[in-house]
Amino acid sequence: MIVYAVGIGPGDTEHMTPQAKQVIADCDVVVGYTMYLNLIPELLHGKEVVGTGMRSELSRCETALAKARSGKKVAVISSGDAGIYGMAALLLELADNDSQIEIEVVPGITAAIAAASLIGAPLSNDFAVISLSDLLTPWATIEKRLEAAGLGDFVVCLYNPKSRARKDYLNWACDLLLKYKPPQTWCGHVRNALRANHEYEILMLRDLPEAEIDMLTTVIIGNADTRRIGRRLVTSRGYRIDGKEAGEDG
Amino acid sequence: MIVYAVGIGPGDTEHMTPQAKQVIADCDVVVGYTMYLNLIPELLHGKEVVGTGMRSELSRCETALAKARSGKKVAVISSGDAGIYGMAALLLELADNDSQIEIEVVPGITAAIAAASLIGAPLSNDFAVISLSDLLTPWATIEKRLEAAGLGDFVVCLYNPKSRARKDYLNWACDLLLKYKPPQTWCGHVRNALRANHEYEILMLRDLPEAEIDMLTTVIIGNADTRRIGRRLVTSRGYRIDGKEAGEDG
Repeated sequence: MIVYAVGIGPGDTEHMTPQAKQVIADCDVVVGYTMYLNLIPELLHGKEVVGTGMRSELSRCETALAKARSGKKVAVISSGDAGIYGMAALLLELADNDSQIEIEVVPGITAAIAAASLIGAPLSNDFAVISLSDLLTPWATIEKRLEAAGLGDFVVCLYNPKSRARKDYLNWACDLLLKYKPPQTWCGHVRNALRANHEYEILMLRDLPEAEIDMLTTVIIGNADTRRIGRRLVTSRGYRIDGKEAGEDG
Repeated sequence: MIVYAVGIGPGDTEHMTPQAKQVIADCDVVVGYTMYLNLIPELLHGKEVVGTGMRSELSRCETALAKARSGKKVAVISSGDAGIYGMAALLLELADNDSQIEIEVVPGITAAIAAASLIGAPLSNDFAVISLSDLLTPWATIEKRLEAAGLGDFVVCLYNPKSRARKDYLNWACDLLLKYKPPQTWCGHVRNALRANHEYEILMLRDLPEAEIDMLTTVIIGNADTRRIGRRLVTSRGYRIDGKEAGEDG
């Protein structure tokens, strides 16, 4: 039996891969966080749909495996990519001792890519992806990674930058990064990237703590090679344009 | 005028987004590295196709902009995502002084995501993406980022791990990472991820320098939370399974 861990991308079918769409079409049961299921109503007609709340990932995946054991074809959906802060890892761990069940991961467009495509090309060179949620990862580990990302002059993409319960985490992250990056470092934040009504703002690192950011927002913090071009951000890869090094601010 | 920077994903239409396919269908001219154009012959019927060799990125993008100025609809394709080591940044830089031209970035499944989906779920928590190519980025910068990624216990995804001209770079990268990660750290390398005849291997960091790796390979190096489950790698996010912390090796 196969359980599919499917990344649906940002949510609209425009950015969902044909494989993801086909796998969902072929399944009897679709399991997921209710908010994500609500993004794809047109794919759920005639399906058994199991929606669960936030933070119920464990029971969600156990339900999916139980449905598969009862002979049903099951897809567990994640927004973005199923392997990046998605359900693929937990499904693989839970299925570890069950030789009957195989997990297939169906990739999708993750929020970093969706957000970057709107902002311009901020991820065109080396970058780090860090979640600011400390539900599963200790804050000390997150701090260590922020410091390391600053030290390495990585462009940094932050997932889960803020929630009602974690109002100050983004500020703390900015404080840490400001030890390594100048306050004028270009940043962008994108809400509902590539969903209907997405919106983004380009701003400097010093202004990021005051920005309107919530848990549907992805934040991208540039590096020394990131500059603003009009309403977009570009991290120069270093091609020589007109005989001068690209990426200089001027 | 709009020039589209289109990420075609791994190359087969199964993993290309409907938007990417539609944009290419709507364009008069498709510009790209010949090897990537050869991945999508069925999308190029009746198009003006401009294929250029490796390392001719600058002339490729200038040609695309010139075609757009002559009134044609132009797509510049990149494999994977157009914004991650792709053509989007250079197009935005070149179009900087031309208010007539807008660049739209059409996202795609990047190699990190494609490779991870085959290996299992190695990127399920924080990770860093680093290219080992020093054509545009000085090796000292790459070293600094490898050290930082080691220091932060990031899972590391390496693009351009090896080429004929850069035989030793992967070995040097492993040496640097071995200062921070134990030799038993789980790794995977994937060749032609999600293309026909893709292949992957799971192995330990100590064995990575001896692996068969070329420029079509993506390498993923785990962290302290990465373990092998059968033929797959999983980086545990830390959910408690059966009352014990997930991700422990045993």
